[in-house]
Amino acid sequence: MKILRFQIGKKEAIGILKDHLVYEVSSESGTGPQIGPHPELGNFHPLKEVTILPPACPSKVVGVGLNYRDHAVELDMDIPDEPVLFLKPPTTVIGHDGTIICPPESKQVDYEAELAVIVGQAARKILPEDVSEYIAGYTVLNDVTARDLQRKDGQWTRAKSFDTFCPLGPWIETELDPGNQQISMRVNGELRQDSNTRNMIFPVEELFSFISHIMTLNPGDVIATGTPPGVGQIQGGDVAEATVEDVGTLINQVQ
Amino acid sequence: MKILRFQIGKKEAIGILKDHLVYEVSSESGTGPQIGPHPELGNFHPLKEVTILPPACPSKVVGVGLNYRDHAVELDMDIPDEPVLFLKPPTTVIGHDGTIICPPESKQVDYEAELAVIVGQAARKILPEDVSEYIAGYTVLNDVTARDLQRKDGQWTRAKSFDTFCPLGPWIETELDPGNQQISMRVNGELRQDSNTRNMIFPVEELFSFISHIMTLNPGDVIATGTPPGVGQIQGGDVAEATVEDVGTLINQVQ
Repeated sequence: MKILRFQIGKKEAIGILKDHLVYEVSSESGTGPQIGPHPELGNFHPLKEVTILPPACPSKVVGVGLNYRDHAVELDMDIPDEPVLFLKPPTTVIGHDGTIICPPESKQVDYEAELAVIVGQAARKILPEDVSEYIAGYTVLNDVTARDLQRKDGQWTRAKSFDTFCPLGPWIETELDPGNQQISMRVNGELRQDSNTRNMIFPVEELFSFISHIMTLNPGDVIATGTPPGVGQIQGGDVAEATVEDVGTLINQVQ
Repeated sequence: MKILRFQIGKKEAIGILKDHLVYEVSSESGTGPQIGPHPELGNFHPLKEVTILPPACPSKVVGVGLNYRDHAVELDMDIPDEPVLFLKPPTTVIGHDGTIICPPESKQVDYEAELAVIVGQAARKILPEDVSEYIAGYTVLNDVTARDLQRKDGQWTRAKSFDTFCPLGPWIETELDPGNQQISMRVNGELRQDSNTRNMIFPVEELFSFISHIMTLNPGDVIATGTPPGVGQIQGGDVAEATVEDVGTLINQVQ
């Protein structure tokens, strides 16, 4: 099932996407969709007529450094024995069709296509085998990074924290095999990243468990699971399209 | 004026502290106190009878690395030309009298006494000379850090992100000269850090301006302005007391 947050006129709502139609459903939470397996389908709108909003409003976005075997090989780096984490503030999040704004502080803004996990319920010290109960679903994330500032600072926070640096969406797929998804990035239609989530060093259940032993994860929180090889620059006028096979394509203009 | 969030019985409220009495005032926002210069004072309670809550509910806590000249000299490190930032997730925040929990993953949990800035209104690309308009006030923060994990990861996020790793409080002082405050840390009564905010490399208005050019700061957000020399370990059974001269003392047990 594909769930999205959207706006039509002045109304914001949650909907289910089916055959290019968005069916409105109710939600009791501001932090993310809380929908049972058989929601009542109400009003519907053609997908083209709604404005897609970010599918979650996270209180934190937790990112993971090097997490693709093929990317580690490309960089000639050792496979890490534990995930290396970073955070992106909630103010980075924009939705499908939102504009990535390159800040004047950076001369090299890079795309990074990633599979994102959306937390479904509060999670603290969860074992890998129990993780699936705590996941609302999956979406696509572009972990936009000011590469020059990342290098300069050593710490990655500034480079990954500019407003608009976390495109997220277009919607949440609630049924997905996170361990076998083609993942790609196209810039202006040209294929730049093309891998499969089976190349992850730490699969989703291990990442989620690891992070939940450090910090309580709350509904709507996002885990960005790392990017495959092929990262590179975007600049004003570009269009970045990140795709996860069974989720869809997250498209953002660059300014 | 000293403003605090507190609980009495089952009620949470915002109050003004005056002569060891807490006067209840109303608040229109969940993100932090929004009180005019001459609030109506209502019911009051002796300070001893209320449970003090964290004085703000930040959507992000932005920290700054090396920011005291004397600390840089102590570490024999160069004075940085720009602040180096990190983030602590909102789930790290506890209040005065809250318990710092040392996680099993770390063998060395350190205290770091800091002056904290509480954002008063949404701030984006603010010039240093305009910063004061966007500050609600100041409080004390203990930037608890798992030093061994900080060294292992290179990135500081995990080390600074464990639940309970951001004691904050006890209250917000709305009138403070942030550029000339004695700042200290005592562990079990013994003085471990003792400096003055005038030793900051980047003063509050520069830090705030710098950060606001990267990410929009929202009401209740917190800026941790860095720690002076003398950081060291805490362990189960310790009591950590961080003091900023004209704010007060933030006391936390360690478990």
